[in-house]
Amino acid sequence: MASVTRQMLDAYPKSINLDRAKLAAVIDTINSCAQACTACADACLSEEDVAELTKCVRTDLDCADVCTTTARVLSRHEGYDANVTRSVLEACVAACRACGDECARHAEMHEHCRICADVCRECEKACRDLLAAMS
Amino acid sequence: MASVTRQMLDAYPKSINLDRAKLAAVIDTINSCAQACTACADACLSEEDVAELTKCVRTDLDCADVCTTTARVLSRHEGYDANVTRSVLEACVAACRACGDECARHAEMHEHCRICADVCRECEKACRDLLAAMS
Amino acid sequence: MASVTRQMLDAYPKSINLDRAKLAAVIDTINSCAQACTACADACLSEEDVAELTKCVRTDLDCADVCTTTARVLSRHEGYDANVTRSVLEACVAACRACGDECARHAEMHEHCRICADVCRECEKACRDLLAAMS
Amino acid sequence: MASVTRQMLDAYPKSINLDRAKLAAVIDTINSCAQACTACADACLSEEDVAELTKCVRTDLDCADVCTTTARVLSRHEGYDANVTRSVLEACVAACRACGDECARHAEMHEHCRICADVCRECEKACRDLLAAMS
Repeated sequence: MASVTRQMLDAYPKSINLDRAKLAAVIDTINSCAQACTACADACLSEEDVAELTKCVRTDLDCADVCTTTARVLSRHEGYDANVTRSVLEACVAACRACGDECARHAEMHEHCRICADVCRECEKACRDLLAAMS
Repeated sequence: MASVTRQMLDAYPKSINLDRAKLAAVIDTINSCAQACTACADACLSEEDVAELTKCVRTDLDCADVCTTTARVLSRHEGYDANVTRSVLEACVAACRACGDECARHAEMHEHCRICADVCRECEKACRDLLAAMS
Repeated sequence: MASVTRQMLDAYPKSINLDRAKLAAVIDTINSCAQACTACADACLSEEDVAELTKCVRTDLDCADVCTTTARVLSRHEGYDANVTRSVLEACVAACRACGDECARHAEMHEHCRICADVCRECEKACRDLLAAMS
Repeated sequence: MASVTRQMLDAYPKSINLDRAKLAAVIDTINSCAQACTACADACLSEEDVAELTKCVRTDLDCADVCTTTARVLSRHEGYDANVTRSVLEACVAACRACGDECARHAEMHEHCRICADVCRECEKACRDLLAAMS
């Protein structure tokens, strides 16, 4: 069944510049990344070696916030402004790269970091692809 | 395949009071509701009869914010405080009920309101069930 | 000079049930609390005894999210729903109490926890007073 | 008296690359902008000519979300990553410019748009100055 994101995009009453199926998939990927980062920050806090993971918690928190905002901006089509969308996507790329890099450093020790790193890489790629499709 | 939420909960290193599969499903439902409400607010702004939909936009925005916060609180297990979780879930029930009621009033006119009303009802029920499971 | 919150409330075009000066003061207090909690979480991550502060980080993050959402809900007057406002304020009271209690435990060791505890207490009181004024 | 933001920055236990007084002022300006935009979106929804203000609501919502995330990223110093901070600030500049431009179009009709436009201009400038100070 189509995700709620896709169903809502299909019900949007006006035209949208981007392909709706593709856009829905990007938003779902970004929302999953926000969720992974929020969960990874908390899992890091629960680890005995939390003192080695403070940078990871920080990049998780940034990435969760940036992804949440990016998904919201991408879900609004009324009064669309390409400059805002593009710069928000670029911030999302930067946050996902930083978080993916940091989580990857702990991926062998902590499964939550491994999953989060993978999700961040996927989200970074999805945002880059959308940026390419916009230009 | 298990959702990212579920994968991250399965990778959480300590014990969690609630059933992980059930908790993951509730978080996914809440995140979908946040997404539906953000999209519905924007779709309402795009309708010609937007003047009839201003209350709907408002309840959508509240519900999106409350759901986003609720999903985050439910995704943190370190230093768990049942009072905070319970009161946040109760706020989510109230926001989903208000938004579901308002969207239902426009469901015949606007497909995005129909979908959003259904998602809000489902989310309200999921939060009520989790509250019941906690006590 | 009046805060931006107060200026915007004075420019609101319709009637508001609550006293505008009082409401503006509560919103400003809640926004300050969100800021203090975000900063305290990061300061805790920077401490050498971070392993003793993981619950504090968690309550900070919850409180920041709940306060941000509460300030947003209180800033919306179109289509006002007292049930939503009340339940969100109650969640804010619970989050501020939990965070104030936890920060107070570290107040002698860490100045950021002392400040954050004070701000949480003030925010909890402001939310309780607003709840009393609503009934 | 120093703002809570400033007090918390002064209590931060490690070094910070930027001047603390200047950084606190920028964060306070960004938080005020988030508040103005949330309030302006709601005030627009309350206007009789809401159909003329739908783009304004949208840019307000984007700007509120981007500012909230930017203030959070700027409030975290542990594991600082200049690339993330810079790209988030650039997104904030873009969101403030779009919202300031749109609100300015309605400033003569609506006092809330006039105030919000001014606050967005101030916030855009503060973010640009911080970007300049970082390089």
